Amino acid sequence: MTVARTVELEGHIIDSGMMQQCFGVVMDLGGNFDVEEFEVGEHKDAESYCRMTVTADDEDSLREILHELNQHGAHLSNPPNATLKPAPGDRVVPHGFYSTTNHPTKVRYEDEWLPVENIEMDCAVVVKPADEDSDDAPRAYTKVLNAIEEGDLVVADEAGVRVDPPERPRGSSGPFGFMQGGVSAERPSGSLIREIAEAIAETKADGGSVLAVAGPAVIHAGAGDALARLVREGYVDMLSAGNGFAVHDLERGQYGTSLGMDVETMESPRKGHKHHIYTISEIIRAGGIEEAVEQGLVEEGVMYECVENDAPYVLAGSIRDDGPLPDTITDAVEAQNAIREQAHEADLVIMLSTLLHSVAVGNCLPSTTKVVCVDINPATVTQLLDRGSAQAIGMVTDVGTFVPKLAEVLVEE
Amino acid sequence: MTVARTVELEGHIIDSGMMQQCFGVVMDLGGNFDVEEFEVGEHKDAESYCRMTVTADDEDSLREILHELNQHGAHLSNPPNATLKPAPGDRVVPHGFYSTTNHPTKVRYEDEWLPVENIEMDCAVVVKPADEDSDDAPRAYTKVLNAIEEGDLVVADEAGVRVDPPERPRGSSGPFGFMQGGVSAERPSGSLIREIAEAIAETKADGGSVLAVAGPAVIHAGAGDALARLVREGYVDMLSAGNGFAVHDLERGQYGTSLGMDVETMESPRKGHKHHIYTISEIIRAGGIEEAVEQGLVEEGVMYECVENDAPYVLAGSIRDDGPLPDTITDAVEAQNAIREQAHEADLVIMLSTLLHSVAVGNCLPSTTKVVCVDINPATVTQLLDRGSAQAIGMVTDVGTFVPKLAEVLVEE
Amino acid sequence: MTVARTVELEGHIIDSGMMQQCFGVVMDLGGNFDVEEFEVGEHKDAESYCRMTVTADDEDSLREILHELNQHGAHLSNPPNATLKPAPGDRVVPHGFYSTTNHPTKVRYEDEWLPVENIEMDCAVVVKPADEDSDDAPRAYTKVLNAIEEGDLVVADEAGVRVDPPERPRGSSGPFGFMQGGVSAERPSGSLIREIAEAIAETKADGGSVLAVAGPAVIHAGAGDALARLVREGYVDMLSAGNGFAVHDLERGQYGTSLGMDVETMESPRKGHKHHIYTISEIIRAGGIEEAVEQGLVEEGVMYECVENDAPYVLAGSIRDDGPLPDTITDAVEAQNAIREQAHEADLVIMLSTLLHSVAVGNCLPSTTKVVCVDINPATVTQLLDRGSAQAIGMVTDVGTFVPKLAEVLVEE
Amino acid sequence: MTVARTVELEGHIIDSGMMQQCFGVVMDLGGNFDVEEFEVGEHKDAESYCRMTVTADDEDSLREILHELNQHGAHLSNPPNATLKPAPGDRVVPHGFYSTTNHPTKVRYEDEWLPVENIEMDCAVVVKPADEDSDDAPRAYTKVLNAIEEGDLVVADEAGVRVDPPERPRGSSGPFGFMQGGVSAERPSGSLIREIAEAIAETKADGGSVLAVAGPAVIHAGAGDALARLVREGYVDMLSAGNGFAVHDLERGQYGTSLGMDVETMESPRKGHKHHIYTISEIIRAGGIEEAVEQGLVEEGVMYECVENDAPYVLAGSIRDDGPLPDTITDAVEAQNAIREQAHEADLVIMLSTLLHSVAVGNCLPSTTKVVCVDINPATVTQLLDRGSAQAIGMVTDVGTFVPKLAEVLVEE
Repeated sequence: MTVARTVELEGHIIDSGMMQQCFGVVMDLGGNFDVEEFEVGEHKDAESYCRMTVTADDEDSLREILHELNQHGAHLSNPPNATLKPAPGDRVVPHGFYSTTNHPTKVRYEDEWLPVENIEMDCAVVVKPADEDSDDAPRAYTKVLNAIEEGDLVVADEAGVRVDPPERPRGSSGPFGFMQGGVSAERPSGSLIREIAEAIAETKADGGSVLAVAGPAVIHAGAGDALARLVREGYVDMLSAGNGFAVHDLERGQYGTSLGMDVETMESPRKGHKHHIYTISEIIRAGGIEEAVEQGLVEEGVMYECVENDAPYVLAGSIRDDGPLPDTITDAVEAQNAIREQAHEADLVIMLSTLLHSVAVGNCLPSTTKVVCVDINPATVTQLLDRGSAQAIGMVTDVGTFVPKLAEVLVEE
Repeated sequence: MTVARTVELEGHIIDSGMMQQCFGVVMDLGGNFDVEEFEVGEHKDAESYCRMTVTADDEDSLREILHELNQHGAHLSNPPNATLKPAPGDRVVPHGFYSTTNHPTKVRYEDEWLPVENIEMDCAVVVKPADEDSDDAPRAYTKVLNAIEEGDLVVADEAGVRVDPPERPRGSSGPFGFMQGGVSAERPSGSLIREIAEAIAETKADGGSVLAVAGPAVIHAGAGDALARLVREGYVDMLSAGNGFAVHDLERGQYGTSLGMDVETMESPRKGHKHHIYTISEIIRAGGIEEAVEQGLVEEGVMYECVENDAPYVLAGSIRDDGPLPDTITDAVEAQNAIREQAHEADLVIMLSTLLHSVAVGNCLPSTTKVVCVDINPATVTQLLDRGSAQAIGMVTDVGTFVPKLAEVLVEE
Repeated sequence: MTVARTVELEGHIIDSGMMQQCFGVVMDLGGNFDVEEFEVGEHKDAESYCRMTVTADDEDSLREILHELNQHGAHLSNPPNATLKPAPGDRVVPHGFYSTTNHPTKVRYEDEWLPVENIEMDCAVVVKPADEDSDDAPRAYTKVLNAIEEGDLVVADEAGVRVDPPERPRGSSGPFGFMQGGVSAERPSGSLIREIAEAIAETKADGGSVLAVAGPAVIHAGAGDALARLVREGYVDMLSAGNGFAVHDLERGQYGTSLGMDVETMESPRKGHKHHIYTISEIIRAGGIEEAVEQGLVEEGVMYECVENDAPYVLAGSIRDDGPLPDTITDAVEAQNAIREQAHEADLVIMLSTLLHSVAVGNCLPSTTKVVCVDINPATVTQLLDRGSAQAIGMVTDVGTFVPKLAEVLVEE
Repeated sequence: MTVARTVELEGHIIDSGMMQQCFGVVMDLGGNFDVEEFEVGEHKDAESYCRMTVTADDEDSLREILHELNQHGAHLSNPPNATLKPAPGDRVVPHGFYSTTNHPTKVRYEDEWLPVENIEMDCAVVVKPADEDSDDAPRAYTKVLNAIEEGDLVVADEAGVRVDPPERPRGSSGPFGFMQGGVSAERPSGSLIREIAEAIAETKADGGSVLAVAGPAVIHAGAGDALARLVREGYVDMLSAGNGFAVHDLERGQYGTSLGMDVETMESPRKGHKHHIYTISEIIRAGGIEEAVEQGLVEEGVMYECVENDAPYVLAGSIRDDGPLPDTITDAVEAQNAIREQAHEADLVIMLSTLLHSVAVGNCLPSTTKVVCVDINPATVTQLLDRGSAQAIGMVTDVGTFVPKLAEVLVEE
């Protein structure tokens, strides 16, 4: 006794790898397939089409296969409406809930496809039916586990869900055509920086938003001025960082000008961790970063430019923080929500030397957002690129030379 | 015009490096010194004594030199009482506050030396005067910035503060004599594991407490059973981890036994991130980890053994968490406080494949606590050992083979 | 004006990724394709077939496309005989020479397919015509550049060359089915070691040869005894290493027993680099490693077991060597030839903590040889696996715990 | 029964750490000491003096202690003449031979101190007595093991040997004062590059020689033009590299201009390893690199500039080489000798992204030569700096941005 369903694939299913992955999924999970129809695009611009029957030993195995196929872009023929189950409690999903990918997704509801709003991975999909009173149309959107409320109508199983993984850009098509999702250790650094600059410039030219995610190493490595310049010149619209980044930046901005200490000297002698704590204390006394800028306590740096140029920033707290600053969001769930909001607005994200914050931001990004990830540790770059953006570039380099060069190319050329 | 003060050093000041460091401090910071008296211990068990006058161009430079000298164990001759200044506001330190090291410290108050309680680095020292009504003696203790309350009597400057950095153990003296604070890439792994096991066994034999700090890699690498065994057999008394560690462990414990899935099979196919979310959802439904264990939902694993053996655990939240679990402390300041409490109770801390949690715990440790740090990334081990424990061992190895071998040696030998 | 040729693909061309790669090659290199016939294997055990016409702007572009297609297993329809050009000088290849992959390859000569002997990558293919006098049949074999002699008949261009890249094993098929060419950081270390042990045991059971490539870290990490045990018990048949590995091993074997020094003590105090030089000096005085074993100067260790068990070893010299030992081949070309010979005999190669020697051996391996690569540095493992073996496993772990555990599983279970 | 000897230390023995190390040596090796006289320099510019009696249980232990003390700069009081023993055979040292450090060293011969010529570590010291016929004075020089000839008078034991480890530069003294032998991850990259440029400029201004040691990553990362510029402008006087570096550079120089291929395009498509082999083949056909430059086959690049500017280069072979080029020295011992000669001439060595060649060069350097080590892998930098140069700087950065910036600063400022 076996069970079967028919699925369809269409598009650039061969050269994008979709077909290979789908065939692989069926084999890996112990199923079988019969190809019923296959029309190959006869030249490189033509789309292909494949319809096949997938067979498995039992319903559970079949469901698992269909789940994976669905996530790779294979869709059920004659899709039924999605199954909706009420959440049994706050922050509790029904058994068999559908867990999202980061790819564009639709759910079938009352025989129509509803696009899922705010797509991001590892969420549930909640359907809000039409509201006759207010005339609101039905909607589908993602909810993270901790946002689920009892009674929410949660999509369960794969049926009636349709995922459309973006086909990877190929050749010279588009700004990110120069590298297809790889970490290139063998690419000339200079040309790669130029190409990243071009991608940022194009995003800005198209009216898009650039989000910088920055770790404290940006300041230590001496790239603070260059990042501040990118904010001032409008190439970075938003900042996502941690308490440590802000404190190191403010310490430079505060001690560098207002208290008369030479920035270079300050760094060269001993650790001076006391300055670190004292900086936080003074910002607390001022009432926050914005107030410290207004009071003239801080006169330069990345945080200063964010305040002066209305570039919103999210400072997320962590257990290794000193202080923290009044601006730091210490609750992880609240911080995630703030990060989520920024991530959804960004068209291009540049991640600079921070694994923690980059993963947090990356978790909230749809696969269609452009991502540039820069770190001196190749393992960090690989880990970030593995999270499934379709348009991601990794560069293993030193932020201390990278950001100044990037700013030079963007601002001066 | 120069200013001068007299300082003294005593103990194994030459072979412990204290004297070299103190001379270096004076030179690096632009001061000068005149050695007035120097008695060298004439053989290896004898202590030495040095008294010297330190000169600088101005009071600020001198204060900076004395600050550094103090942190390396050189004390002012004829120490005055410590300067106390009231905190000008909640979470605000007075100008010139004294910032702690992680070494044993005393402050001079009313011509007596008060030992500073709960010493940890980068804190302020608060003195609570004697309370005549309750007959309480005066006390001095550390406070992190966010615990400072307006009016707290905070120690300022170096005067009246005495730091006693532990002399590093030398030769075969003591359990950690086998390695003096280094990361040894050239040590035989087998012997090193045996020596770490011995240090843990001695700590337990002396009635001490062992705290394990564990990252999710412990579970991925297949070392979960071995760590669970160490908890069950009483070699690990407390656990400090994050939401991710607990979820991965619970997912194994939950799906491995209660829902009938084979643990090995579960790991080998595709990611199954859905299980991850579902595990959290079910723990939330149960009401928490302890409740899940009581209800029989979880029947094995590290968290299970912690519950069954009353080993307290702290799960600290972070912005990359899914869920989180009800047991996870999402507020970074609250989580730090919980970590601090555990850290102060620990006699030996073993850090397993997590930089974030290890730094957070390490920040709260006095330099006298033994630390074992294990990671496959040498940069992580180096960074953790740099934080100044006097009795720290680093080992660059695979936790997936390390923990099972450690458990085997401890339990079976 | 465009130029065109017809190529064919057959086999598991979809799930092995061959078809995706071929379509990608054409697009990346600016060509176009028209699929003329496509028969997809209708279920997972059936093979597929595709015939397509590839078009390019000029002959040069087309040749480049065909070169790449050929290396991915697409073959020209109606293949002509291979073009043979005489080498214009010793160590000089003719213009347009065919450069090999490491996959099984045939060349068409007098309308027959000759299999290319001793296939390895980046070589030329030389055809030796039939010899009428001796009745020898025609042969084709690889030659590295420095072995080319003036007048050799060297294959030029792609025409008449057929490459058959092995299809990657899938699912549970074969001993290496457990991992498909990836570096798994998230696999349980214990199970992975067991599976590697099984692959070695199967190779031995099938009468195959196991070659160990070992760096000095094997000795430093304390895995020398375990590797010696694998040689003694017949699980390792050949050794490829450098001068440093042998000297460290001999120093232990020599000072550990014959000169009465305790091995553990010897390692723990200071560097004792003098022992290193003295060990070499004594082996030179004895006349070589074999002589030193015969004279009783060395009584244990990896080199000792190699001599006693007739396990051939190649010690390749390098510019950072001390000494070197009389057994070390100091000329790089001679050493490569010795390595090549061993590599061609091996059925499974286990690479232990050495990038230099592993690359040298890997360069000489056909893609059909099984490879296990173990290093604590993930970049090393990635680099080695990237070299194109179809059956390669990487494991990021500590050789100091890995080899003992592997030996334990192999010998005791 | 114990044995004893008197040793003396003088100089900046406290702040340079010499005294601490010497006391540590005695304790670690189980000896005891009695300080007989100790005069501490009373201020920071004054030297100190210490005389102590060292005691051990037997002559062997004492000899080991004295060996270590000697290497840290403690000298025997009333030094005897050095013990000389004839080498018992070619490439064989006498028992108990003295093994060199890389510090300035003298040996006592006929009651005079002879400076040891060509000091480098892990060598024997050979004394050539005065030659009455030729009036040559007696000399002492290092010999590596493979250069020892039967009958050479080799220094044995420590007696009559005097090592003077350079005191580390402190504060602002000298060009390398900015960093004292550390790898600084927390230094601003821009300032560090400026300081390195200054050190190179000072070396050149003083008439010194700069040796660049370069790996193939310099070319891959796009820094070839910048390194070529440094050769052309006279900032790099000598080059030490491997076959791979030269081939990659020549391939760019050859295909980039003479054969009409666009350098950028050549890098971006597929590997084109065939070009690599063909480049070597064409250089062989030309007769070597110099001939290829003369014949106009190569018109730019690092090797081109070396030929044009008479900058001598050593290309050392290795077992992973293709080809090799006719200029590559394939014998490891011959290559070491060529490297040694260059190393002895260099006043500043800059090591760029190659562990193998940097170790080989580093092995031949006295501790007084300045070393700059640049790599993106921190483990490589740490390993190279551990080899004991007194004036070494490490920088963890991307050579692809470092070399162009360095050239810009040196040439344009």
